Amino acid sequence: MAAYTAIVTVRLKRGVLDPEAETTKRALERLEFDLEDLRSADRFEIDLDADSETAAERRADEMAQRLLANPTIHDYEVEVVRR
Amino acid sequence: MAAYTAIVTVRLKRGVLDPEAETTKRALERLEFDLEDLRSADRFEIDLDADSETAAERRADEMAQRLLANPTIHDYEVEVVRR
Repeated sequence: MAAYTAIVTVRLKRGVLDPEAETTKRALERLEFDLEDLRSADRFEIDLDADSETAAERRADEMAQRLLANPTIHDYEVEVVRR
Repeated sequence: MAAYTAIVTVRLKRGVLDPEAETTKRALERLEFDLEDLRSADRFEIDLDADSETAAERRADEMAQRLLANPTIHDYEVEVVRR
């Protein structure tokens, strides 16, 4: 067993409205910042023990599918690093 | 001018309670996942045009300080990539 951190990034799929990101973008523009676009995402950093990096990645992927992401509106990606 | 994406990751400072992360951790445990810890963070992906990578990073850093992060409770980091 080794110690890993799985980073799961959950984003809205392209085409799904993101009013929070739109509000943040407008607030930055009101502060006179120049920007082309702003997207927001949720990032989960999950510490877990697993037999291998592959096993850690598989478990984090299952966590994303079962709880962290909603497949109707979200895409997600998983990255695993040693801790 | 070149096109960059600045990725701003905003985390709660160590010691600041994160009830949402705690709830997510417990929900995963109820689904019988094994995990040691879970932290959540907000990730902003900001497309902007700037004269250099340094200028893009400086602007994103200012956005974090003025709006995206609350210095009392948050740490943040900025990463800039060409788009």
